[in-house]
Amino acid sequence: MKLNKDMNILIVGLGLLGGSYAKALTDKGYNVTAVTKLQHSIDYAVENSMIISGSTEVNAETVGNADLIIFALYPTVFINWVECNQKYIKSGAVLTDVTGVKGSVVYKIQSMLRDDIEFISAHPMAGKEVSGISNSDPKIFTQANYIVVPTEKNTTEAIELCENLGEELGFYRVTRLNVEKHDEMIAFLSQLTHCIAVSLMCSKDDEALVDYTGDSFRDLTRIAKINDEMWSELFLLNKEPLIKEIEGFEENLFKLKKAIKENNREEIRKMMRISTIRRKRFDKRG
Amino acid sequence: MKLNKDMNILIVGLGLLGGSYAKALTDKGYNVTAVTKLQHSIDYAVENSMIISGSTEVNAETVGNADLIIFALYPTVFINWVECNQKYIKSGAVLTDVTGVKGSVVYKIQSMLRDDIEFISAHPMAGKEVSGISNSDPKIFTQANYIVVPTEKNTTEAIELCENLGEELGFYRVTRLNVEKHDEMIAFLSQLTHCIAVSLMCSKDDEALVDYTGDSFRDLTRIAKINDEMWSELFLLNKEPLIKEIEGFEENLFKLKKAIKENNREEIRKMMRISTIRRKRFDKRG
Repeated sequence: MKLNKDMNILIVGLGLLGGSYAKALTDKGYNVTAVTKLQHSIDYAVENSMIISGSTEVNAETVGNADLIIFALYPTVFINWVECNQKYIKSGAVLTDVTGVKGSVVYKIQSMLRDDIEFISAHPMAGKEVSGISNSDPKIFTQANYIVVPTEKNTTEAIELCENLGEELGFYRVTRLNVEKHDEMIAFLSQLTHCIAVSLMCSKDDEALVDYTGDSFRDLTRIAKINDEMWSELFLLNKEPLIKEIEGFEENLFKLKKAIKENNREEIRKMMRISTIRRKRFDKRG
Repeated sequence: MKLNKDMNILIVGLGLLGGSYAKALTDKGYNVTAVTKLQHSIDYAVENSMIISGSTEVNAETVGNADLIIFALYPTVFINWVECNQKYIKSGAVLTDVTGVKGSVVYKIQSMLRDDIEFISAHPMAGKEVSGISNSDPKIFTQANYIVVPTEKNTTEAIELCENLGEELGFYRVTRLNVEKHDEMIAFLSQLTHCIAVSLMCSKDDEALVDYTGDSFRDLTRIAKINDEMWSELFLLNKEPLIKEIEGFEENLFKLKKAIKENNREEIRKMMRISTIRRKRFDKRG
């Protein structure tokens, strides 16, 4: 199966990401329907031309027609959904997702899934600090990475379908990573940074500080406003890689602190020079 | 003495900040001259209408005429300068600075200073990731705080002169803090954040990461490109307050890590909720 405009695409979960997917695909001329928990999300999506129709019911009628199903749910909700409802899915359908952690999700889904349907995992690295369909916007994809995370169970056809989906959604870059590499990367680049921002905000309570805050502090703690329900789940589902990255960071902070304590200026400068060189690689290109 | 356009203002050190001060004050119609180490900085400043004239020599002629002297030097260079050259300063002159740490600078300067001249310390919380006069720009002041840091040795007159200077330079907000409060605030808001960014960059060396980096990581590590000469000096000159803030942060990161290790989701969520509430206070107003 190739991505094409005759296929029926079903989005499960109309939140920030589900809504943005729906809008992007409908704008491109695809047939998009949705199932989601709340009727007003469906009403909003229909009114804003994001889907043809939607339902709060999960059954043969609302699910059984879909060729491609995109799950935009929290990881544990996603796993439960598949467990309970895969019986409604059409034979030959392809499933994909938006889940931000992979090791604790992908193998579980693939091992419980019926043999005649395929799950190819993907992680759209896009988001906002706000949630819900009313904040959805396909523009969040244009600067972002879309990572396809195949396993040995996936067919080339499904991997390519998923890559095409990322392209059609308008992502800046579509790549592939294996499960372990994906989770390590996410632990370092995304989860550790959120742990740092949260810990920093927890470490001082002084309202007067606001008056002296510059851009460095604001930029560093922007992500400290955090959806605690979603992120606590993501942290726990990626626990081992995350703990490893936190400890790597702790070691280096300890090393820097020790150098400061011991007036070891050369060691401080050495770390700063390494930091400067490495950070330059991360400057946005053109 | 009040700030007025008949007075002679001398800037010592034409780097990013000295240059920005020079330009801002000259544009407002003040008489500004400069002494600095390199002739080409003077040439640049004269060509760009930042000063009337300047010299690389420090003597009675280049210094002795100034009513207000602004030191835009690294802290230790500043202390040495005053020690060697205060003999040239006119009786009744007021001295101020741009130094980012106060406890290790202000008392030293004030105790060595001649009785007929006064030093009132200030910290313009403005900067860039780049240095040098060619990057100077008074626009860096318009969103920034200017903090006057008086001690018991200062006169009301000099404190007010210094506050007027901050206003004339175009700072967003001019405030007063005592030395200890200033250094604690700087340790937390500025130095700790730089320690975090540097330690984070030192904790992983993987060029492939760049391809997956999103805005959170980029924002958090923007300050990891760091002038190692200046910042290592600032860290060591504010060692005690900085170590205290690093340790406060370490404790909270450890607490979060422990909660993740123990699957204590409620504790994780609690920290995230505290973080979210506190961070909202730091949102930019208007």
